[in-house]
Amino acid sequence: MPIAPSVLSELRNVLGDRLSTGESDLALHAASETFHRAPPPDAVGFPLDTAEVSRVLAICNAHRVPVIGWGTGTSLEGHALAVRGGLVLDMMRMDKVLDIRPEDMLAVVQPGVTRETLNTELRATGLMFPVDPGANASLGGMASTRASGTTAVRYGTMRQNVLALEAVLADGTVIRTGSRAAKSSAGYDLTALLVGSEGTLAIITELTLRLHPQPEDVAAAVCAFPTLEDAVTCVAQTMQMGIPMARIEFMDAMAMRAVNMHMGSAYPEQPHLMVEFNGSPQSVKADAESFGAIAAENHGQGFAWATSLDERNRLWAARHASYYAALKLRPGATGISTDICVPMSELPAAVAAASEDMHRSGLMGDVVGHVGDGNFHVLMLLEPGNQDEIAIAKGVAERMAHRALAVGGTISGEHGIGVGKRGLMDAQHGAAWGVMGSIKRALDPNNIMNPGKLVPDLN
Amino acid sequence: MPIAPSVLSELRNVLGDRLSTGESDLALHAASETFHRAPPPDAVGFPLDTAEVSRVLAICNAHRVPVIGWGTGTSLEGHALAVRGGLVLDMMRMDKVLDIRPEDMLAVVQPGVTRETLNTELRATGLMFPVDPGANASLGGMASTRASGTTAVRYGTMRQNVLALEAVLADGTVIRTGSRAAKSSAGYDLTALLVGSEGTLAIITELTLRLHPQPEDVAAAVCAFPTLEDAVTCVAQTMQMGIPMARIEFMDAMAMRAVNMHMGSAYPEQPHLMVEFNGSPQSVKADAESFGAIAAENHGQGFAWATSLDERNRLWAARHASYYAALKLRPGATGISTDICVPMSELPAAVAAASEDMHRSGLMGDVVGHVGDGNFHVLMLLEPGNQDEIAIAKGVAERMAHRALAVGGTISGEHGIGVGKRGLMDAQHGAAWGVMGSIKRALDPNNIMNPGKLVPDLN
Ligand SMILES: Cc1cc2nc3c(=O)[nH]c(=O)nc-3n(C[C@H](O)[C@H](O)[C@H](O)COP(=O)(O)OP(=O)(O)OC[C@H]3O[C@@H](n4cnc5c(N)ncnc54)[C@H](O)[C@@H]3O)c2cc1C
Ligand SMILES: Cc1cc2nc3c(=O)[nH]c(=O)nc-3n(C[C@H](O)[C@H](O)[C@H](O)COP(=O)(O)OP(=O)(O)OC[C@H]3O[C@@H](n4cnc5c(N)ncnc54)[C@H](O)[C@@H]3O)c2cc1C
Repeated sequence: MPIAPSVLSELRNVLGDRLSTGESDLALHAASETFHRAPPPDAVGFPLDTAEVSRVLAICNAHRVPVIGWGTGTSLEGHALAVRGGLVLDMMRMDKVLDIRPEDMLAVVQPGVTRETLNTELRATGLMFPVDPGANASLGGMASTRASGTTAVRYGTMRQNVLALEAVLADGTVIRTGSRAAKSSAGYDLTALLVGSEGTLAIITELTLRLHPQPEDVAAAVCAFPTLEDAVTCVAQTMQMGIPMARIEFMDAMAMRAVNMHMGSAYPEQPHLMVEFNGSPQSVKADAESFGAIAAENHGQGFAWATSLDERNRLWAARHASYYAALKLRPGATGISTDICVPMSELPAAVAAASEDMHRSGLMGDVVGHVGDGNFHVLMLLEPGNQDEIAIAKGVAERMAHRALAVGGTISGEHGIGVGKRGLMDAQHGAAWGVMGSIKRALDPNNIMNPGKLVPDLN
Repeated sequence: MPIAPSVLSELRNVLGDRLSTGESDLALHAASETFHRAPPPDAVGFPLDTAEVSRVLAICNAHRVPVIGWGTGTSLEGHALAVRGGLVLDMMRMDKVLDIRPEDMLAVVQPGVTRETLNTELRATGLMFPVDPGANASLGGMASTRASGTTAVRYGTMRQNVLALEAVLADGTVIRTGSRAAKSSAGYDLTALLVGSEGTLAIITELTLRLHPQPEDVAAAVCAFPTLEDAVTCVAQTMQMGIPMARIEFMDAMAMRAVNMHMGSAYPEQPHLMVEFNGSPQSVKADAESFGAIAAENHGQGFAWATSLDERNRLWAARHASYYAALKLRPGATGISTDICVPMSELPAAVAAASEDMHRSGLMGDVVGHVGDGNFHVLMLLEPGNQDEIAIAKGVAERMAHRALAVGGTISGEHGIGVGKRGLMDAQHGAAWGVMGSIKRALDPNNIMNPGKLVPDLN
């Protein structure tokens, strides 16, 4: 049911010409990097402050209009698609860094600030915000998906790095969760409840983020392995030793080929690990030596060190370009990246099984991963609109997820659920999925907040 | 309303003679270390497994009988008192370490395992469970209060160290939250919701805990400061430098006097910091030197190093004995320990204000704290049953909490809310407290789970 003209005019009273029903705005807010597709929303709003968000939600709640938050739209499971129509709230004009408190190692930002913008602002303070999902996503979107990335192994995910939130509930009520203190035992952890809730409980309008000191010294390296098993076993042993890795990333032979094509580099087309060490010059040296010994035992070859900022940037650019690089392996293809996370001891077998399954299924793609957390992605390259390939890819992704569950892991380490993995939630959570539904119903009885996602169907 | 005889007999069908209405069992489960008092519960049950807990809850839910979880009963805000009567479920017979998986750095335990028991079991694995609230509390109780302690500054609190839970809801439904993977983006973070929920949402029947490598090298030291401000400023500067302290504890002059009396030691009766460094021999040395320089700048004196295990144990025994030592300053007294947590930059002023307020109010006591997190406790020594002193002490605690809120902190860093701080929840959370109430109502519509605690009154 489209939004009634009278409701649109109520919304226009709040947002003025920042309420759009123009085709290009609607189309932009129906796009997804993946094969997930849905019709465009009925309208897009661009709020400037919390009060506007509150008034908009109160109106939508009164008229049962779905509201879908939108950051940079980079989520990978169709999270932000308006699958039941309604209003997309594009949060990117709430883009102010409100406060930086170096002495308390925290920053207060609006949800439309991107992680790169925040880090640029922080440069002179000696502090940084480390969570790094590759894409230059919005911090509101990152909180909503509980994003992580290459540095989570050292600094944690959004779960550990969001201290406090301001958020607007379905009925327009503005709440504040958490505090500026490093820890708290004062009631239910509503901050943790909202982080990862994918816009189904509230719209996040402000975030208080934990900052970390920029490391005194940094060294990075890349190292090739003869087999996938050698590389992944090296990771498992490194983590069990307790070496405080700042990053430890896996890329398979195909991912290296893509990077070579994309960047003009000449890495051997073999499984690689890319690693980074942060700390004092002494600790970086000691950690690097310990890692080097483990890599050697696992047949690591051709260690290339990157200590200058330039060399390091080039190395991590290669890693971060991996998604777009891979798309070149099959020009014109759509990528579907599916992620799981498993206990460390299960990582070698899980990576091998996923890789084999993809190739046996006749799909082209690669395996990369934030393997220090037991987290990895399979990127499959599909002909756009080819329903057979999409069905095969869904099968590969589902089997990966079920294998993760069989060994005590999770169907998503960081990308989240959206529409793509909702069918797997019952398998992972059983009765606890029903509890998620009860919480959703309690906070959003009319089911207007990003309906059709994450929780069981309520109506 | 006491439990009806017919209900008692239903419960006895499940628990047999592990259901007690004997006076001594009731009295033991009405005790509290503090001045918080309540009549004894109507009955105490000692379940042996999850199935029994589930059956007991289903019965209590059907008959609207309050159920209060009980670990070691060391919580400090009257958390486990049966303020509305009902059944106390003493979880201490569910005391098995179910699984230790060194390769995945996790352990699976029943809720009645204490942290010392777990660490004894872990000794040979090279791993440890670091969360350390001083008391040898149960891991189920520690999860329920979101406990932390001296090591949280390095290893996090129960929030960071509980990976997964099994829990039983009010109606007897058994749920599993979280997974064995290091991170997950698969739906609402029910683990974080239950951690810190103080038994108001569910009874925890199993915990999967994150383990950490035992540090290769450890050094500890104690250092005196001329003033409280010097000591606390030293802490703030140390944390802002990013020195990875394993522990950094503050004790004021009075706390040192108590320790001297209790342990026969001869520390100068001045404010002290007790610190610990964990890591490789090189990093421990480097960190200790960096800290030493900051301490010296803040007039730190008489650095005493403890590197042997024996010396270290003696040092931390002094810190951990501080609560019971302080009770000797006023023989026969009841201690009331109240805790707040503030942003680091606010710590010096907050500690000074709390100390002054206590002394100006004519109370005897001391200040100690896990100051690396901005968390500290005021321990006040009261004549048992002296209502005037209790009223004064409550005033001191309340003003501390309000000062914490005024600077963006929290009314409790680690002890929790129980009955003692429930009156402050509205001031901290406002509308978000109502959200906690909505969640409670959704999961426990009959309000049988530890009623009268933490959330707003529902009925
Ligand atoms: C090349 C590439 C690499 C990636 N690598 C990683 C990675 O390594 N790790 C990782 O975690 N992710 C990764 N992602 C996925 C994506 O970047 C993350 O999911 C990111 O957190 C999404 O942020 P966004 O701003 O784009 O959010 P969007 O996609 O706009 O929205 C995501 C979800 O959050 C909701 N939402 C957005 N803003 C708000 C708000 N203010 N309040 C409430 N709800 C809101 C939306 O409704 C939606 O459900 C990658 C994506 C790409 C394209
Ligand atoms: C000397 C001393 C020092 C202390 N120092 C610290 C400190 O440094 N840091 C700190 O955090 N705390 C400290 N405490 C407080 C206390 O040790 C912690 O709150 C601890 O977590 C309580 O654990 P317990 O097993 O005693 O729980 P209990 O007191 O038995 O119960 C605590 C709460 O949890 C609930 N509960 C217990 N078990 C379960 C279960 N299985 N399922 C559901 N609910 C349950 C109870 O209903 C109650 O609400 C200290 C206490 C003392 C006496």
